[in-house]
Amino acid sequence: MSDVKKVVLAYSGGLDTSVIVKWLQEEYQCEVVTFTADLGQGEEVEPARAKAQALGVKEIFIEDLREEFVRDFVFPMFRANTVYEGEYLLGTSIARPLIAKRLIEIANETGADAISHGATGKGNDQVRFELGAYALKPGVQVIAPWREWDLTSRETLMAYCEKHDIPVDFSKAKKKSPYSMDANLLHISYEGDLLEDPWTSAEEDMWRWSVSPEQAPDEATIIELGFEKGDAVSINGEKMSPATILETLNKIGGANGIGRDDLVENRFVGMKSRGCYETPGGTILLKAHRAMESITLDREAAHLKDEIMPKYAKVIYNGFWWSEERRMLQALIDASQEFVTGTVRLKLYKGNVIVEGRESPYSLFDSTIATFEDDAGAYDQKDAAGFIKLNALRMRIAAQKGRTFLDRD
Amino acid sequence: MSDVKKVVLAYSGGLDTSVIVKWLQEEYQCEVVTFTADLGQGEEVEPARAKAQALGVKEIFIEDLREEFVRDFVFPMFRANTVYEGEYLLGTSIARPLIAKRLIEIANETGADAISHGATGKGNDQVRFELGAYALKPGVQVIAPWREWDLTSRETLMAYCEKHDIPVDFSKAKKKSPYSMDANLLHISYEGDLLEDPWTSAEEDMWRWSVSPEQAPDEATIIELGFEKGDAVSINGEKMSPATILETLNKIGGANGIGRDDLVENRFVGMKSRGCYETPGGTILLKAHRAMESITLDREAAHLKDEIMPKYAKVIYNGFWWSEERRMLQALIDASQEFVTGTVRLKLYKGNVIVEGRESPYSLFDSTIATFEDDAGAYDQKDAAGFIKLNALRMRIAAQKGRTFLDRD
Amino acid sequence: MSDVKKVVLAYSGGLDTSVIVKWLQEEYQCEVVTFTADLGQGEEVEPARAKAQALGVKEIFIEDLREEFVRDFVFPMFRANTVYEGEYLLGTSIARPLIAKRLIEIANETGADAISHGATGKGNDQVRFELGAYALKPGVQVIAPWREWDLTSRETLMAYCEKHDIPVDFSKAKKKSPYSMDANLLHISYEGDLLEDPWTSAEEDMWRWSVSPEQAPDEATIIELGFEKGDAVSINGEKMSPATILETLNKIGGANGIGRDDLVENRFVGMKSRGCYETPGGTILLKAHRAMESITLDREAAHLKDEIMPKYAKVIYNGFWWSEERRMLQALIDASQEFVTGTVRLKLYKGNVIVEGRESPYSLFDSTIATFEDDAGAYDQKDAAGFIKLNALRMRIAAQKGRTFLDRD
Amino acid sequence: MSDVKKVVLAYSGGLDTSVIVKWLQEEYQCEVVTFTADLGQGEEVEPARAKAQALGVKEIFIEDLREEFVRDFVFPMFRANTVYEGEYLLGTSIARPLIAKRLIEIANETGADAISHGATGKGNDQVRFELGAYALKPGVQVIAPWREWDLTSRETLMAYCEKHDIPVDFSKAKKKSPYSMDANLLHISYEGDLLEDPWTSAEEDMWRWSVSPEQAPDEATIIELGFEKGDAVSINGEKMSPATILETLNKIGGANGIGRDDLVENRFVGMKSRGCYETPGGTILLKAHRAMESITLDREAAHLKDEIMPKYAKVIYNGFWWSEERRMLQALIDASQEFVTGTVRLKLYKGNVIVEGRESPYSLFDSTIATFEDDAGAYDQKDAAGFIKLNALRMRIAAQKGRTFLDRD
Repeated sequence: MSDVKKVVLAYSGGLDTSVIVKWLQEEYQCEVVTFTADLGQGEEVEPARAKAQALGVKEIFIEDLREEFVRDFVFPMFRANTVYEGEYLLGTSIARPLIAKRLIEIANETGADAISHGATGKGNDQVRFELGAYALKPGVQVIAPWREWDLTSRETLMAYCEKHDIPVDFSKAKKKSPYSMDANLLHISYEGDLLEDPWTSAEEDMWRWSVSPEQAPDEATIIELGFEKGDAVSINGEKMSPATILETLNKIGGANGIGRDDLVENRFVGMKSRGCYETPGGTILLKAHRAMESITLDREAAHLKDEIMPKYAKVIYNGFWWSEERRMLQALIDASQEFVTGTVRLKLYKGNVIVEGRESPYSLFDSTIATFEDDAGAYDQKDAAGFIKLNALRMRIAAQKGRTFLDRD
Repeated sequence: MSDVKKVVLAYSGGLDTSVIVKWLQEEYQCEVVTFTADLGQGEEVEPARAKAQALGVKEIFIEDLREEFVRDFVFPMFRANTVYEGEYLLGTSIARPLIAKRLIEIANETGADAISHGATGKGNDQVRFELGAYALKPGVQVIAPWREWDLTSRETLMAYCEKHDIPVDFSKAKKKSPYSMDANLLHISYEGDLLEDPWTSAEEDMWRWSVSPEQAPDEATIIELGFEKGDAVSINGEKMSPATILETLNKIGGANGIGRDDLVENRFVGMKSRGCYETPGGTILLKAHRAMESITLDREAAHLKDEIMPKYAKVIYNGFWWSEERRMLQALIDASQEFVTGTVRLKLYKGNVIVEGRESPYSLFDSTIATFEDDAGAYDQKDAAGFIKLNALRMRIAAQKGRTFLDRD
Repeated sequence: MSDVKKVVLAYSGGLDTSVIVKWLQEEYQCEVVTFTADLGQGEEVEPARAKAQALGVKEIFIEDLREEFVRDFVFPMFRANTVYEGEYLLGTSIARPLIAKRLIEIANETGADAISHGATGKGNDQVRFELGAYALKPGVQVIAPWREWDLTSRETLMAYCEKHDIPVDFSKAKKKSPYSMDANLLHISYEGDLLEDPWTSAEEDMWRWSVSPEQAPDEATIIELGFEKGDAVSINGEKMSPATILETLNKIGGANGIGRDDLVENRFVGMKSRGCYETPGGTILLKAHRAMESITLDREAAHLKDEIMPKYAKVIYNGFWWSEERRMLQALIDASQEFVTGTVRLKLYKGNVIVEGRESPYSLFDSTIATFEDDAGAYDQKDAAGFIKLNALRMRIAAQKGRTFLDRD
Repeated sequence: MSDVKKVVLAYSGGLDTSVIVKWLQEEYQCEVVTFTADLGQGEEVEPARAKAQALGVKEIFIEDLREEFVRDFVFPMFRANTVYEGEYLLGTSIARPLIAKRLIEIANETGADAISHGATGKGNDQVRFELGAYALKPGVQVIAPWREWDLTSRETLMAYCEKHDIPVDFSKAKKKSPYSMDANLLHISYEGDLLEDPWTSAEEDMWRWSVSPEQAPDEATIIELGFEKGDAVSINGEKMSPATILETLNKIGGANGIGRDDLVENRFVGMKSRGCYETPGGTILLKAHRAMESITLDREAAHLKDEIMPKYAKVIYNGFWWSEERRMLQALIDASQEFVTGTVRLKLYKGNVIVEGRESPYSLFDSTIATFEDDAGAYDQKDAAGFIKLNALRMRIAAQKGRTFLDRD
């Protein structure tokens, strides 16, 4: 166990990971490198520097990864209209592979032989961090303190802090939210406490990023979202960077009561778990992207994407972003997005995302064919008879041979 | 062509199918049997009797199929959380196989050798009617007047009426909706006219079954929906028949601005088509069923259902209800619903369907395992290390052999 | 660890599991119940009784499970034409759920609180045994000696035998095959030793159930295999029980050099593994069942089965027979087999299984339609034009809008 | 009908397509351009020139497309281990998109507004030609004489020849094979005549490319097939072009009785059809490619390919090569082949293709992990316990809640 010389820790600057810094130094007698990333969680990351220094950390990495996060992880995922178990937009899942990648890159850079994280032994995040780490650096050692130590209650943790002079901001520690939370530019999540009873609804003051539909404005907000090759690129005609797009949609969406979800999901480690999520921008983006595809994607391309999506969502949820199967699925998805370019007009109102219009230079919608009016020969209705006849042929033969559905169960 | 002796027509009692009665009598010199069904479209069906009689029809079938429709078609479909192309709840598609079945049963009963319908040659409904008919009676002849005749404009149709003394209620014909509509207990649909431009939003006065979210009450409605083996059986503790459940949900949902959808879909016959749909009860049912499953379904059962669903939706959309593949998929789906029993509490508010709670005697949610608190040994966090190690093994081996993701595209 | 009172062991009567009996008694201070099954492995099971008695075992279960094995496990699997990774007929995998089931039933019957098996910690079998056990008796304790003890070399094992007076038949132990083998009515498998180099071919004297194609008779054997609802029921017109069918096919197949396979497969635990398999009867059965389906299955039913098969194979290979997903997939598969009834004529010759003919009272093959000769109007070739036109419509629209394939990558 | 000015005909030089030349000139009063391709069918294509000239054709295209055929169509398809309905290697299907492409390119080059082919109205080939044509040139007119004319018997055809002075080589026409055949470098196919009874086996003298297993040499042939990124590149160490590889494998395979298949397949147009195929080289290639992948592909990459394959096969069989869905599937498949490089050693003997060894610089087979011997810590067997425990968790919870499989059907 003690052959670890240097470990890179995913460090939030909070109490738990501060304890981990100390614990790693003590238990493993090794040097700790901290890595703190701004993924849009809405908290300052710079204060983590002083805290780490106070704990004796010499190599401190603090990075703004917001653009990379949205451009290389969130957007590729949204190209697939990805939803896990019909509801969850994978806000936590999609941030993990980027953190895993930076942990490993920093380990390579600093000559560390291990990485560590503050995820518990019951959740999906440990899996996502570690699968990513192993895939990117197979010989790396992973230290997951929550699976190893005995500081499993608030009391033992506090005692440890006292013993090791770790400063606890008690005012903060006290009024701390009772929920286990995770946030980044895509979402904020809540688990635990009251939510552990799936019959109990979430309290209104739990939610942080959105107003309730009831409290949202009585006036709708109309926006136009521009897409290029499957990715959002502009709002109301103004070009924006990926992170800015998502940040802006979060604000508009949250103000209109959009993006709350309350669900019970199936974790990769085997149990069901209740979670509440706020994904304002993502909720808008999903609806808009589907609308954009509805006029620009070929039918069979769209169906193939829909059929493959649950598997793609599962791959990401389970933590296999850095895998061959994810690369292969991404190749299929990306190959479909060449013409997913245009504009979607949306009405946002008290929790609703309503598509009001879609247009594209590559639109496959052809009103001269679809029309109920005279189509001037664009479509020969008589073709439909042959089409139906041959589609029915196998069933007619079966019925002629006595296989009918009328008498069967 | 003229070897048809008797034809069963899907007869609405409206102008178009009244013209078809006459046209069949003239063109095919055959007897016409009319079949008019109450599927919950919200219009009286009994008046169709007098109209048919006036056209010389002797065998007139008028039936209330609402319970059969919901019990044997809508509910089985909702067990699969069926959605076509991410949006459409298949309200029109799911009514067609029942009509096809009754057309054929009546043909068998009355000794008819043909069936006929009023669907156009551009849409999906012709396919659904005819595939069902051929599957159930392979030797049946199908007459689709809209693919054959030249009464393709309003003018020629009116001229035909005048020539053949078909009474036209001009007041009605005039103020007729500009949209092509279809309705049954599951939904009402709108196509055509203004909707043929996908950038134009639907006019508020088009919608018939729901108020807009803006006009919905400022006070939310809370309901509890009871399920047994995957089907809704009660509202607020009161047991109801399938059709009554759906009818009630339509009313509550419509009053709360729920269930409108505006989309561009891909037809089986090959073109894209803009459609607007109101599915108030179905929208509630879908959300509630998923919530019910979230605590009662095994994870892999849920994922298998999600993976198979797009194919099942396509089978129904394309008109293959009466097929081996639909029976097989249904067997798989139904095998999953044995324990989908319990209650879901929902908040309905201005277009939103919000899950507030779910409970079941068969719940698989186990808070003693999922808890962030001490679980008294219900789950050994150390198991997670081995779980992750073996899940990572194939990727670690690959990385050791030089296949890394860091340098690849 | 020592709270186990009674354990049911899957006992082969061989040296390894005999050592396990003693080890369990020593380490766990618990009573051992042995369970030995005849699954058609080709060795007497009755001798296991005396051996167990000699080890002090009081409750000894020796059972002939051959019919149940073939009827309830092998045949349902073959209804799906199940093949893992394009090659492996799952001969080992499919026996495990039955053994797991009997272990648990015997545990329930004898009041045991644990089960044990002799599978190693690197293979799939431990997973299959244990997943089955946990699914059928969630509170059961599982003891896997190979993951716990330190008797990991031949020497330590022999020393243990000597110390505990376990009789070793040295003559047998010595001339023992160098391969790790497993056998039942479906197959015999070989792993390890020379096979650990995938470039080296298997030695001819390794194979036990079949002659090589070279040594097979110069004269072909013709057989007719009868099917009812997807299961083989007769050979050359003679009705036989499931186990007898498979046993007979094994003999005929093995004599004709049929059923050898040499492959590298991917284990559930994460590594690749070289295995050689002899599956004479299964190889014949697979080919014959597909031929039987080729004239009796609807096209889309057949395609749906083919699409779902790899997942079904994976479920079985990974040990999830006793799972919701397996039940659901089985429901889908079984729903397709109602008319898979008839006869297939096969020519067996030096490793080849050649289909010579298939016939069925439910055949969907209709030569009056398929014929190149005049079909007397059974099929109207003009229907094909409309069929093609509408199938092409989406692609024509796309091409008209400038999306061509000629200039693209 | 008569607005066609110039038509490009897929011209074999045989009697049927010669009649079509004349018929097109007569019926459509248009100019005919002939296109004859050498796809490896084993017949001289140059003689088609004189025949076309004799029929008054001015623009004559005769091309050797063998390399393009194998490189851009056959090989990409084999990367997916493509098999239709478990048996058919798609030898005919895969040639059609190339012919369609050249027909359209020649139409563009010569200013033709139509294409024509000699496929009947009952088969798949008409669909494949025409879907390809419409996808590549949406406004093209397609003329399918067999669906239009009345020359449907041998007699009427001969009368037409006599009337229009089309030279008939009677000796050849007489001793013509009774089977409808199609050949290219990948296969030769037989349909019709005796084969229309699926209980009757094919006559030995029907087969043209292979000897029977009985007549094959008593001595096995050993070859080593080299692969690079999923494609075969060498035989016995000698680098060869794609077409040469396939041609060589055809010879070796045919000489060893390899590659015959006799099956009943489901056509896209709705009926079942009996076909016999000889695919010597393809049969070897398929087996070898799978063996190559078995040591070089990641497990989940392999499984994903297997799950997607039936759909890919269907897309090709049905004629949708030039479609978005084929491009997307190809992107997924190709993304998996980067490391499918190495050598497979095969033994070819009387119909058998036996894998004797596989090796690769990128092999993922790691004998130090898979070994039954001491692995020096490469794999910790204790990890398996946690792996199994968490994989079993969902099933244990369900069983604890009373959902058992022991009493359920």
